[in-house]
Amino acid sequence: MNLSFDTLTPTERYKLLCSVVIPRPVAWITTIAENGSVNAAPFSFFNVFAEDPALVIIGINRRRGGERKDTLSNIERRREFTVNMADTALAEAMVGTAADFPPGESETAALGLATAAGHIIATPRLRDAPASLECRLYEARTIGEDRHLIIGEVVSVAAREGLFDPETKRMTVPHYDPVARLFAAGYAKLGEPYDLTVADWRTVRRRRRSADESPGGPA
Amino acid sequence: MNLSFDTLTPTERYKLLCSVVIPRPVAWITTIAENGSVNAAPFSFFNVFAEDPALVIIGINRRRGGERKDTLSNIERRREFTVNMADTALAEAMVGTAADFPPGESETAALGLATAAGHIIATPRLRDAPASLECRLYEARTIGEDRHLIIGEVVSVAAREGLFDPETKRMTVPHYDPVARLFAAGYAKLGEPYDLTVADWRTVRRRRRSADESPGGPA
Repeated sequence: MNLSFDTLTPTERYKLLCSVVIPRPVAWITTIAENGSVNAAPFSFFNVFAEDPALVIIGINRRRGGERKDTLSNIERRREFTVNMADTALAEAMVGTAADFPPGESETAALGLATAAGHIIATPRLRDAPASLECRLYEARTIGEDRHLIIGEVVSVAAREGLFDPETKRMTVPHYDPVARLFAAGYAKLGEPYDLTVADWRTVRRRRRSADESPGGPA
Repeated sequence: MNLSFDTLTPTERYKLLCSVVIPRPVAWITTIAENGSVNAAPFSFFNVFAEDPALVIIGINRRRGGERKDTLSNIERRREFTVNMADTALAEAMVGTAADFPPGESETAALGLATAAGHIIATPRLRDAPASLECRLYEARTIGEDRHLIIGEVVSVAAREGLFDPETKRMTVPHYDPVARLFAAGYAKLGEPYDLTVADWRTVRRRRRSADESPGGPA
């Protein structure tokens, strides 16, 4: 099955791309609104892209009516934001914050989500999130008519006690149970983990040749 | 636990960000090398970011010695590439292509991976991948000293027969079994899926209040 993108509407492209590129990590972003209240909203057009400087990128669309989302306005005004990660226990609250709250109506207040002061920036993080990344705005740009790219530089991390190993500088899976975004109303837990190690290229080639020469033929 | 990023080395930041931002989707990128052979390599600093134009972004680092990776050189020379998705059955081959093959040494040939002609672009896709996105280079830029951002515009999609519903323009989960990237040697399958629907904001607020007022107190 082959489909040229120029035969598809933007909505069809959106649905298709969201279902092909899975699982996506979710940035549950907190920002400070113009009235000082805390805004929270989830975005899955998101990933980490570099470590020096440490950059994350988030794609933010317009609301159905074409207005800018509060998260975007707040990031552009304050030039900072916090990416909170959500785990399965917080998934329902996370999707609650995706509702179309009016500007200045705090999602964290409406949902009873506790916040904690930022470590370096003024924006609070979600206290019960397994991990949070404090970010300063590195760059904002517009793509097409209604999509915005926010590039953030991570300046600090907060992690829940017991979930982060200060020795290895890594989270501990499976204790860390992050939400995976699929598409439409779909989310997933992490499934069975497995390890695969990168080998020397000559070893990879040799292994493959041995498999071809085995009685059963290619694996 | 709070850690300022300016106290961490780039390697520590890399390890930390890779373990916090999970699960990541994997772009198993095919490109055409200078000698005409097909190069393949996996990247998990990757996501979709927009639909109009339809953009994906990939973060590509340098090799340990500081040289550019073949994927980057090939994309810049040909101005096109294909993002293949990998499923569990292909995960071992995918990680095989992450080995440090010399330029012009084809990963697809070394691993016996079948390719199929591109639909719109010249770059072949991996024939057995569950889905592939043909991309034209939209923009390439350098971040810091050794990280490159590749922004690609998706011009065509190929999907394995039976995995894509032409009616809804979506892949069919759980038949589609994409690889999720964790960190270090870790990968995972998709776990138990669940549905969460975005409600009207007044409904979200009302639900929360009812929960607070129930005999058990806040949920």
